[in-house]
Amino acid sequence: MKKAIILGLGAFALAAQTANDGPQFTNNGHLTLPKDYRQWTFLSSGLGMTYGPAASADTANPSFDNVFVNPSSYRAFIETGRWPDKTMFVLEVRSATSHGSINNAGHYQNELRAIEAEVKDEKRFPQKWNFFAFGLKDTGNPLPADSACNSCHSQNGAADNTFVQFYPTLLEVAKKKNTLTPAYLQKSAAEAAGAK
Amino acid sequence: MKKAIILGLGAFALAAQTANDGPQFTNNGHLTLPKDYRQWTFLSSGLGMTYGPAASADTANPSFDNVFVNPSSYRAFIETGRWPDKTMFVLEVRSATSHGSINNAGHYQNELRAIEAEVKDEKRFPQKWNFFAFGLKDTGNPLPADSACNSCHSQNGAADNTFVQFYPTLLEVAKKKNTLTPAYLQKSAAEAAGAK
Repeated sequence: MKKAIILGLGAFALAAQTANDGPQFTNNGHLTLPKDYRQWTFLSSGLGMTYGPAASADTANPSFDNVFVNPSSYRAFIETGRWPDKTMFVLEVRSATSHGSINNAGHYQNELRAIEAEVKDEKRFPQKWNFFAFGLKDTGNPLPADSACNSCHSQNGAADNTFVQFYPTLLEVAKKKNTLTPAYLQKSAAEAAGAK
Repeated sequence: MKKAIILGLGAFALAAQTANDGPQFTNNGHLTLPKDYRQWTFLSSGLGMTYGPAASADTANPSFDNVFVNPSSYRAFIETGRWPDKTMFVLEVRSATSHGSINNAGHYQNELRAIEAEVKDEKRFPQKWNFFAFGLKDTGNPLPADSACNSCHSQNGAADNTFVQFYPTLLEVAKKKNTLTPAYLQKSAAEAAGAK
């Protein structure tokens, strides 16, 4: 009996850790911003990242971006190198400040500028993943299935529609689990050859 | 009996969430790097932050820094604006890359350069907080009680020996809970007056 209770306790604790950290939608298909997303697992941040031409970069007023993922999906990725259904990414965009307190150069993070999200829901979205724009609100508007976000992620994401190439700890996982896309591997090999 | 078991289960789940996320020391007083610190709560990141003169900034080769704190202490700070005993911060320093994959300008994170930590342990350290340098190892060497880290943090940290002024979400909490230090408030007021 004692053993059964202890086993039950363990299962309950595990369930408590994994439950309810996936995407929640409103009745009209908008995405709810999780109140605790800042306690989700951090993947990486960048400053002034620019996917268009370098000349289009806003060097005078760059933004930080912080990427968080729901913790149960993070643990699944560490084990498998793949994102399970109901994975949700939150991208937080913040302004950058250079001078303040004892900081005299470089940049640190300041006000929230916008929030975006990427969700994997295989039943809800024929293309499996979809994107949402929150701005500064707590519900996110769905982007069209053929949005620029989705086409760029599906063509260039290193693993399963996501930019794992910009998350250094996950890139190592995907390498080990052989889950990097053929397109990413081919492009990386070409870049490495060009750099020689 | 059923009710007692359910209550027990709830308490167990709560304990599972909060236990064992504080600092662990070796017998000789070195600090152990938590294997799961990347699943701790992220506070913020900076790029090329420079506390000395601006001219000393390494603009050609800046580093990102990511700050994580143990989750139970994060939750306590959200409630109180103060850090409980056994709080532990991990500072991760990473190289910055500009050109790679589809990124053409700005910076994203790359290799780990070093890890440092700050720990609050009121019994172990007469000055309450101490600092540890890990380099790329999984145990951290304690810095002297009067290290430059500690004197700078105690003089300039916006709340309780920590640079809450660089963690935008926690700065709001400390303002609401009135836990910003008098020195920080005085300096901020002087800076704001100077900027007018």
